[in-house]
Amino acid sequence: MFQTFTATTRPSDGPPRLALLRAELAAQGLTGFLVPRADAHQGEYVSPHDERLSWLTGFTGSAGFCVVLPQVAGVFIDGRYTVQVRSQIDLEAFTPVNWPQTPAAAWLREHAGSGAVIGFDPWLHTPDEIGTITDGLRGSGITLRAVAQNPVESVWHAQPAPACGPVRAHQLALAGKTAAEKRADLAATLRAKGASATVITLADSLAWLMNWRGADIIRNPVVQGFAILHDDARLDLFLDPAKLAGIAPEDGVTRHAPGAFLPALKALNGTVGFDPMTAPVAVKSALATGLELADPCLMAKAKKNPAELEGMRAAHRRDGAAMVEFLAWYDAQTLTELTEIDMARQLESCRAATGQLLDLSFDTISSTGPNAAINHYRVTEDTNRTLQTGDLFLLDSGGQYPDGTTDITRTLPVGPVAKNRRAAYTRVLQGMIAVSRARFPKGVAGGHLDALARYPLWLDGLDYDHGTGHGVGAALSVHEGPVRLSRVSLLPLEPGMILSNEPGYYRAGAFGIRIENLLIVKTADALGENRPWLDFETITLCPIDTRLLLREMLSGDERDWLNAYHARVLHEIGPLVAPETHRWLQQACLPLD
Amino acid sequence: MFQTFTATTRPSDGPPRLALLRAELAAQGLTGFLVPRADAHQGEYVSPHDERLSWLTGFTGSAGFCVVLPQVAGVFIDGRYTVQVRSQIDLEAFTPVNWPQTPAAAWLREHAGSGAVIGFDPWLHTPDEIGTITDGLRGSGITLRAVAQNPVESVWHAQPAPACGPVRAHQLALAGKTAAEKRADLAATLRAKGASATVITLADSLAWLMNWRGADIIRNPVVQGFAILHDDARLDLFLDPAKLAGIAPEDGVTRHAPGAFLPALKALNGTVGFDPMTAPVAVKSALATGLELADPCLMAKAKKNPAELEGMRAAHRRDGAAMVEFLAWYDAQTLTELTEIDMARQLESCRAATGQLLDLSFDTISSTGPNAAINHYRVTEDTNRTLQTGDLFLLDSGGQYPDGTTDITRTLPVGPVAKNRRAAYTRVLQGMIAVSRARFPKGVAGGHLDALARYPLWLDGLDYDHGTGHGVGAALSVHEGPVRLSRVSLLPLEPGMILSNEPGYYRAGAFGIRIENLLIVKTADALGENRPWLDFETITLCPIDTRLLLREMLSGDERDWLNAYHARVLHEIGPLVAPETHRWLQQACLPLD
Repeated sequence: MFQTFTATTRPSDGPPRLALLRAELAAQGLTGFLVPRADAHQGEYVSPHDERLSWLTGFTGSAGFCVVLPQVAGVFIDGRYTVQVRSQIDLEAFTPVNWPQTPAAAWLREHAGSGAVIGFDPWLHTPDEIGTITDGLRGSGITLRAVAQNPVESVWHAQPAPACGPVRAHQLALAGKTAAEKRADLAATLRAKGASATVITLADSLAWLMNWRGADIIRNPVVQGFAILHDDARLDLFLDPAKLAGIAPEDGVTRHAPGAFLPALKALNGTVGFDPMTAPVAVKSALATGLELADPCLMAKAKKNPAELEGMRAAHRRDGAAMVEFLAWYDAQTLTELTEIDMARQLESCRAATGQLLDLSFDTISSTGPNAAINHYRVTEDTNRTLQTGDLFLLDSGGQYPDGTTDITRTLPVGPVAKNRRAAYTRVLQGMIAVSRARFPKGVAGGHLDALARYPLWLDGLDYDHGTGHGVGAALSVHEGPVRLSRVSLLPLEPGMILSNEPGYYRAGAFGIRIENLLIVKTADALGENRPWLDFETITLCPIDTRLLLREMLSGDERDWLNAYHARVLHEIGPLVAPETHRWLQQACLPLD
Repeated sequence: MFQTFTATTRPSDGPPRLALLRAELAAQGLTGFLVPRADAHQGEYVSPHDERLSWLTGFTGSAGFCVVLPQVAGVFIDGRYTVQVRSQIDLEAFTPVNWPQTPAAAWLREHAGSGAVIGFDPWLHTPDEIGTITDGLRGSGITLRAVAQNPVESVWHAQPAPACGPVRAHQLALAGKTAAEKRADLAATLRAKGASATVITLADSLAWLMNWRGADIIRNPVVQGFAILHDDARLDLFLDPAKLAGIAPEDGVTRHAPGAFLPALKALNGTVGFDPMTAPVAVKSALATGLELADPCLMAKAKKNPAELEGMRAAHRRDGAAMVEFLAWYDAQTLTELTEIDMARQLESCRAATGQLLDLSFDTISSTGPNAAINHYRVTEDTNRTLQTGDLFLLDSGGQYPDGTTDITRTLPVGPVAKNRRAAYTRVLQGMIAVSRARFPKGVAGGHLDALARYPLWLDGLDYDHGTGHGVGAALSVHEGPVRLSRVSLLPLEPGMILSNEPGYYRAGAFGIRIENLLIVKTADALGENRPWLDFETITLCPIDTRLLLREMLSGDERDWLNAYHARVLHEIGPLVAPETHRWLQQACLPLD
């Protein structure tokens, strides 16, 4: 089993650790300190070595930070975590703060006096982040100070060692391009931007650029390390040599110990790019002539090449078959005797039975009843719920395979379901279909299409408080920037990008619904006007539960899309499942009339 | 008649005028000069006094500029005017330039050498505009220079005098708020922004703020003038006193001659706001301590108050009845004996028969066949086309009434129309209905909704190269910023805003389709989730031609919307039309089954 269901922190651990940290801050001459969730590579997941925030506070969410002052310690969390945080932290010692409604600077102005010195670790924050806080503190007499030694590490005596997972090669047949070709392409980009080199700090950028996959971080086959890419395509690489035991040296790539990174940055001549959104402050500070430049891997990685797309399609067929095995099993159970954890375990075993599952792509969200209304719910033994008749069961999951990363959500009935829930389910599906069917001219961004998914819900006064979709890596991180299907994204969609399409609806305390397929952006036929058109290819292949639909709400076009999708699922997945599952699949894929 | 159909310029006038201007530039020591369409108030229309661009070049479009150099003169126009410009200018003397694809700076870099000095009139350009050109010229050795005397005016001997239309009071019952209240509200805004005063330069802002309507500019009842609003709500006003003969003085408002404006700006103490997008460069240059601040009238004016909304509704009922009279007449004619000008004349006479028509709100776009595919087509005797069987007739028009401004487009058949044209018409209507039916949470902007109008067209590979809608003034300019229903607009919609909803489709050389209603943004019932919801109230009341529809393409929801709309049109407009017209209206409003 990859996934575990035990709580990993206890609220009672927080207060004594906070006291230790405060003593250390006083010894270092600091009034306060910022403790972020992030590590130096700004990924969504961090290794046990970097779990400073949960060690100190007990809060285990994927985003947030703590600001420690002598009398008060604020735990800043966004809307997804307002409930979870209160069950994980000691509320005497720590105070939840709603972020971004209350920015760190505004909170510091209220709780710290003029003359206060707030420390931060320059490896754990980006220039953009520190710039925002500094701007907000202007005129307050409160200053930020980068520390040379992180005071949390001084008092965290049992801190695990930095991650040192072995690196494996990502085959050229899957990567589609050699690492040397990638470096040559990016070097041309650097020359065009007038940079003599650029710094790579994101762990998925490094894995993509080197055609490596790693084991530093659960759920994400990324490689933690730093690199300097020069405009002649040479690369200086800084990471623990123990990770690379199984990897032969490459021409044009020079390996260094991690400790050599900072001196190497300081020794660079010429104009050197750094990404102000993702690089550590320490990187910017070390550069003699820095140039703000988005990590050039980001866009190159977002536009998958044909080999990467073929790998993703193959992974989705395999994963779709595993999902179908699970769904057939689900329909054969006495559901009210089973729990969320039972479901997550069964699904993981279906994926493991493919023989190719390397990891989950994230902790399965197996949730029913009111738990399904909690965004980013992760079931533990404490929260585990038995399925109950009338519930909706929401299952959001994915696998890491050698050739691809999957992410799929289905919502299932537990016995007969009330009509208002079925109406909401139908609205969610209508939004999901509208995006799936979309064709659009080149230049259109995710921010322009997001409303298509919401429109059917809006008509009934319903909405969901998350984006409609995120970018997905090819055998990499399941949440991959920079492309998004979200109101805030103005980045035009381009062929080869992969996005999730996952509208939902959540009624707090009652139920949750989400339906999710992954899409490839592709060049479309012209049909009418002779201009560049794009559309989506759906790569997730798994039945969508039609028992929950209110058939009369669907338009003819929506019904036709659903029938065509199910015909394709039966055609492509049918041959991959067991005979008794195939009978179930035929039933699940029956066309609506 | 308000509208005329004669061409107002001749291409042959351009070359001798260009020669005169070049001689004057040489005398002033300038290499070149910028001749914009704009006046000092940056409105869409200009008075004859400000028609410098059409006087020089012959080009009469609503946007564009000329850059005059010793050997070449570029006329910069956008995609709407690429065809029109070639028929209006002498192509030996002037060169059309596609803008914004080719920015002025890039063109100057190609055509002017290092050391060139390009003059501009600081009253006719905004700081943003000049800033963009200056940035683009950096390092080229080409410089911009503000001139004290516009060289065009030095050689334009028959230049008309500045506009001096009489000002009339806009009744409080229509304005909904006294001018003194408006000034007090805006003064509070200034104090909140830390400005001791701000400069008002937009002609529609001034008319709105003073509750005045003017006659300086055709089609737009605005008042050209300048004002300084102080943070204690006092106002200094700079305009020709002859305009105000019929207007009693107001407490708190001091009237000055126009010539006193610049000295008054220079004498201001404190931090003074100016709008970098709309104020003249000359204003910014005169301020000791300027603060970039959007014209505070813009947002206040965009959110109409209940009295303004009621006036707009009344004007739309009156205008809808006039449109219905026209449509009934249209269906009784032998269309192939009539021309575009005949249609525009007949429609104007229907509006004039209301007894309340003050002006058109823009020159009627009366267009058929290939003319209808030309955006912003204005029929003249040279282009006038007789209707032909199989044509689509596109009619976009509006009126200025004491209580409101209207803008409506309908597309009509001329005899039997080919099926592919009817399919495109149905797609356009589906997009228009999707926007009309939209409900959305507060925070959503026009840029998020624009795709709803295009989605049905996109499905067939069709699109249109203009925004879906623009803001509309209340008895003011028919095109009113800052709100738009366009991909580029991120300004959240707010209750009281009025927008057009006008998707279209244009096949060059063949036909054009557009259907347009005006919408009020309003607070909507919660229905489902308890959060602030908005929706649209349609205020345009006039049948939409159902003979052109392919009924089978409409969903049940779309058919229901159309039937409900027609029932409302019959109910509200029926009592306002002649008895024989009423019989036509009943037929036109028959529900689809």
